[in-house]
Amino acid sequence: MRLVTYLSADRSMRIGALANLGSSMSDRVVDLTDAAEGIRCLRELIGRWDRLGPGLAERLRTGSLPEVGPLGQVALAPPIPRPHKVVCIGLNYADHAAETGAPIPTEPVVFNKFPTAIIGPGAAIELPEISSQVDYEAELVVVIGKTASRIDRSTAMDHVFGYMCGHDVSARDWQKGRPGGQWLLGKTFDTFGPTGPFLATKDEIPDPHALDVRFRLNGRELQSSNTRQFIFPIDQLIAHLSNVFTLEPGDLLFTGTPPGVGTARKPPVYLQPGDTAEVEIDGLGVLVNPVVSRPAK
Amino acid sequence: MRLVTYLSADRSMRIGALANLGSSMSDRVVDLTDAAEGIRCLRELIGRWDRLGPGLAERLRTGSLPEVGPLGQVALAPPIPRPHKVVCIGLNYADHAAETGAPIPTEPVVFNKFPTAIIGPGAAIELPEISSQVDYEAELVVVIGKTASRIDRSTAMDHVFGYMCGHDVSARDWQKGRPGGQWLLGKTFDTFGPTGPFLATKDEIPDPHALDVRFRLNGRELQSSNTRQFIFPIDQLIAHLSNVFTLEPGDLLFTGTPPGVGTARKPPVYLQPGDTAEVEIDGLGVLVNPVVSRPAK
Repeated sequence: MRLVTYLSADRSMRIGALANLGSSMSDRVVDLTDAAEGIRCLRELIGRWDRLGPGLAERLRTGSLPEVGPLGQVALAPPIPRPHKVVCIGLNYADHAAETGAPIPTEPVVFNKFPTAIIGPGAAIELPEISSQVDYEAELVVVIGKTASRIDRSTAMDHVFGYMCGHDVSARDWQKGRPGGQWLLGKTFDTFGPTGPFLATKDEIPDPHALDVRFRLNGRELQSSNTRQFIFPIDQLIAHLSNVFTLEPGDLLFTGTPPGVGTARKPPVYLQPGDTAEVEIDGLGVLVNPVVSRPAK
Repeated sequence: MRLVTYLSADRSMRIGALANLGSSMSDRVVDLTDAAEGIRCLRELIGRWDRLGPGLAERLRTGSLPEVGPLGQVALAPPIPRPHKVVCIGLNYADHAAETGAPIPTEPVVFNKFPTAIIGPGAAIELPEISSQVDYEAELVVVIGKTASRIDRSTAMDHVFGYMCGHDVSARDWQKGRPGGQWLLGKTFDTFGPTGPFLATKDEIPDPHALDVRFRLNGRELQSSNTRQFIFPIDQLIAHLSNVFTLEPGDLLFTGTPPGVGTARKPPVYLQPGDTAEVEIDGLGVLVNPVVSRPAK
């Protein structure tokens, strides 16, 4: 199932799914909130998926869910607007590590964003006036489905709920070269975590380690790789993280970016007001976000 | 007011306050949940404090809130069990920076813990079998009261709700010397964020920059300093952070630790099973946590 969070006419949040009514028609959004006992938050739905998921899938298949509208005409929010954790992996493609001048990591490099960085498809990435080096990073995002604490690789994939496109927007002049060397601030400006447009349950993605990942800036392709290039596959990442902290349903895991980031280009390419940023991943749609200057206070 | 979160007889979470019924008697916990429209979460109370706080203070003063029991006999949870953010400042005491061998930072060093690290008074700090260098750090924790986005120092303190004791438990062998140099994993093992025993509203603390901060291990004082030693005072920290991301009611800000940490001692002192860790800060009580080995899975 391809799940979305959307804003209804009264601007309240609701959850839905994409229905494709035949190959000649585009995707349409159908409402899940009423069918899912009033749930308005995919994180909550994930927690009750074992009980509610099969019935929802059946109603989607039989076309008995109320239609909201064509995908392009529905106001989408981030699939998970307020995750409890946004865990990120650095340098998880060998050739990206090389372009940053970093050695190939011998274990996962882990950092994070705050939940306040998360935005949805179509929302603006805001360039802060205090950075001149805001870079793009297309990433596959894993959504956790079941609590994972100190689990083995052999069972790690049982804890995955699904996948979506993500964009790890990064202010390089705040990420690096500052006292203490911590990446957090450069990664967690408000609006620096676009996700979506939808969250695909894992049955939609037969092999998450064989997905093309692409980034386009104003239509020009600047990143193109495949998740088979991961240094650390998803099961190894989840097992590793779960040995340190408890992963919970709805937590997000950004899995690292392929080569081609702006800071490694000659000359460097940074996001500019008026740009359009697109992340595209096989089976996960296209995440499009305009780029603007952060509004004056 | 000194606010607590506690577990009632049916193990559900409720909120309360400390009442001191005369100098010869110890603190007693009174219930706030019923008086606060059923709120069971201090983060939620903070969001409605302007409306509910004055009435609660009046009922506390007049002794009209129902008593739960003596402080020592009530099961306390962390004052804010599930903050949305746990922001931490590194190297905020000049002499602590010196003992770690780091230069005095020219701007705040910012990292974080995940909410899953937070535990309350009396709960066990669990030493993971995959670390042999778990260190202590006594810290003043600031609790945010009002949303803060791109604010000036001049108004920053208006966004503070209150203060509590915090313990920034740190696995040094995971914090440093690993690929990527990010501190997150070493700081965010489950149970590595003790807080409490209570959350004092800011009117209880006339000057947060004149508080003695102490750490004792099995009764032996290993850290002793005063928040007047801060390199970056609280207003500057909040203004700086709010230029990057939005701070929200109930977010926690760990403000850095004074000198005397275990890793800088010769020989080093690390937490051991059976230890008792105590953080004491003027006006904020004593945060006591036993130390145990992480249980086998």
